Amino acid sequence: MKQDLDHLMAERGLDAAVVSGLTYGNPTLIYILNGAAVSGGIVVKKRGEQAAFIHSPIERDEAVASGLRLINRGKYNMSAILEEKGNMLDATVELYRRIFAELDVHGEVAFYGMSDQGRAYLLLRALEEALPDIHVCAEYEEGLFDVARATKDADEIAQVRQVARLTCEVVAETVEFLRRHPVREETLVNADGMPLTVGQVKQHIHRLLAERELEDPEGVIFAIGRDAGVPHSKGRADDPLRLGQTIVYDLYPRAPSGYFFDVTRTFCLGYAPPEVERAYQDVADCLDGVIGAVRVGVETKQLQRVACTILSGRGHATIAENPQTEEGYNHVISHGLGLAVHEEPNFADASSNHQTLQPGHLFTVEPGVYYPSRGYGVRLEDVVWLDETGQLHNLTPLPKQLVVDM
Amino acid sequence: MKQDLDHLMAERGLDAAVVSGLTYGNPTLIYILNGAAVSGGIVVKKRGEQAAFIHSPIERDEAVASGLRLINRGKYNMSAILEEKGNMLDATVELYRRIFAELDVHGEVAFYGMSDQGRAYLLLRALEEALPDIHVCAEYEEGLFDVARATKDADEIAQVRQVARLTCEVVAETVEFLRRHPVREETLVNADGMPLTVGQVKQHIHRLLAERELEDPEGVIFAIGRDAGVPHSKGRADDPLRLGQTIVYDLYPRAPSGYFFDVTRTFCLGYAPPEVERAYQDVADCLDGVIGAVRVGVETKQLQRVACTILSGRGHATIAENPQTEEGYNHVISHGLGLAVHEEPNFADASSNHQTLQPGHLFTVEPGVYYPSRGYGVRLEDVVWLDETGQLHNLTPLPKQLVVDM
Repeated sequence: MKQDLDHLMAERGLDAAVVSGLTYGNPTLIYILNGAAVSGGIVVKKRGEQAAFIHSPIERDEAVASGLRLINRGKYNMSAILEEKGNMLDATVELYRRIFAELDVHGEVAFYGMSDQGRAYLLLRALEEALPDIHVCAEYEEGLFDVARATKDADEIAQVRQVARLTCEVVAETVEFLRRHPVREETLVNADGMPLTVGQVKQHIHRLLAERELEDPEGVIFAIGRDAGVPHSKGRADDPLRLGQTIVYDLYPRAPSGYFFDVTRTFCLGYAPPEVERAYQDVADCLDGVIGAVRVGVETKQLQRVACTILSGRGHATIAENPQTEEGYNHVISHGLGLAVHEEPNFADASSNHQTLQPGHLFTVEPGVYYPSRGYGVRLEDVVWLDETGQLHNLTPLPKQLVVDM
Repeated sequence: MKQDLDHLMAERGLDAAVVSGLTYGNPTLIYILNGAAVSGGIVVKKRGEQAAFIHSPIERDEAVASGLRLINRGKYNMSAILEEKGNMLDATVELYRRIFAELDVHGEVAFYGMSDQGRAYLLLRALEEALPDIHVCAEYEEGLFDVARATKDADEIAQVRQVARLTCEVVAETVEFLRRHPVREETLVNADGMPLTVGQVKQHIHRLLAERELEDPEGVIFAIGRDAGVPHSKGRADDPLRLGQTIVYDLYPRAPSGYFFDVTRTFCLGYAPPEVERAYQDVADCLDGVIGAVRVGVETKQLQRVACTILSGRGHATIAENPQTEEGYNHVISHGLGLAVHEEPNFADASSNHQTLQPGHLFTVEPGVYYPSRGYGVRLEDVVWLDETGQLHNLTPLPKQLVVDM
């Protein structure tokens, strides 16, 4: 949680943390800026002090919403620095030198936020060389903000509940939209008498999202039949909607607050083949079993093991035995969720992964089984939260039902 | 242009370029992947050879759309590498070692694509240390892909024209939406008899965008009165729509192809005060004057100088005399546009900027004058393209008119 930042900085021996870049696609910057609607900037957080936001002069109104100490970047006169230094790398180093001098930053300074990787390498190397009072630090795993962001406080959960409710509404209304279509020769048809396609359904989903001010920056999965059997297949726009085929509908939109939700339902229109019914029951049981294993202190990798054990016990191949299997269960059971659709905690069953479930963790549980060669796949996904007392809350207000009556 | 990559790599002495990361917020990766709808991956482009895409096993269907040579990442068995190495940094170095060995990559290798900056620093430093056959290169300005992406070929322009048409439709329909509202005491009122607000207009804009499959990832500017006088003020949701006040409406949505458009219109509902009329004419004349100065070979900074000269001649303060002015003209005249809403070329009037306009360049021209203390601002923005023969095309099919008759 944000309130843990000073404590987490102390654990890491950090005197200051810098978060910078454009806000677009930069969840850590959005986080430290408390969602202020600016295009970017530099935030300097010294341990034990309020963070300072060096913002663009023309975004001074939007910067106020950050609640941070504000410094107008105009005062550094970057154009004059650039004139003096003659190139942007040296000018940026000089800008940081002046910012650090003004804020009295020295010691161990870690850098976060999205940047072009080559530029980041050059800049941090140049800062390390040019600024004798600071030591450039960085973390590859479980970084300061990864850990802080992974546990959500009540304010954040209030925002997540809001996007959860709207997201589940969209899924339910999409099903109602499908049910309004007549069926001809096992295929849904639209008003022109032509087959209703996946592309048209996605257009409708985008209208439903827009009515709720939700965005779909990463692209909804609405995949039918064989495509449902490939976990990240998005679905083909010209596929018709046919009865009796599995549809994997995985929606992960973002609210204006920046928070994502993520839910998956699988259903068949009209009827489901017996094999699919069995697979669906296996996946639903696995979801319940994994949620049953969620408890503060449990190693995250245990959830992946529980999923593999349950599905393997039902006769499905899993990546526990064969990391490259394309049939059966072949992904990770869970991921953290927040200002990014995938964030910490990490649930990989790797010996290097020692993460344990903590109060505040918000994450998906999403077992699935996939049989592209047999033309189907099933995945179900709920989102759960461990509150401050360690109590589990399922934040997914949406029933599960395999067959949609037409 | 993409076809220039080998030539640009040769100019830079590069043997290979690596582009990696998540696709979300990562335009260079989207570019090299030709828009394939994957969540991320690693692309390795050797000079003179087709690029190879190391993709996630569960995204094998989507990877095909890249048109690149495909390598399923599953073959490297990252879980086993992680087990062996015990941490993700060393495991990632080992993954690159294996990829480079398989593709016979050595020599000067540059890295691109968005990453957490601290992680990028650690990874590229580790690669430089661990892999004796490669030298890690990076560029801070005018990088390989910045330059390639800045010039658009006919295929890209076809996509830009598509999003241009839809974006301009949304602006025109927003104006029609405003005109449908009755006026009471100089204020637009909605069906409930309550004042129509900026927040409600933005909701309608988002519906219009969604109907056209456009996203608004960076947040539309719809700012009235004093807020219109602050260039990047997004507008306040509860501001009512009043007659006679300037509205700056700056829309920069993204199409599913990944390409952005960017257009700004300023208007007043009902009538405009004489001072605003004069400012509007100054800005419109400036736009024409700057577009008149566009020619292949001209230094980009000349456009900024032309804008400052014209507006200064009309009595407006400009950043040419006072870099920190908050009144008058206080930003850069243009920016490149494409898979990012701001990209190369760079139009800053800095002595270190030696860029010149080239065939294929696509960019905005957006003069404005801002008077927050007097409660108004005016900006107009068109997008122009220099084709392969150097001919100028204005890609903005939208008229300009200050007063909207109510």
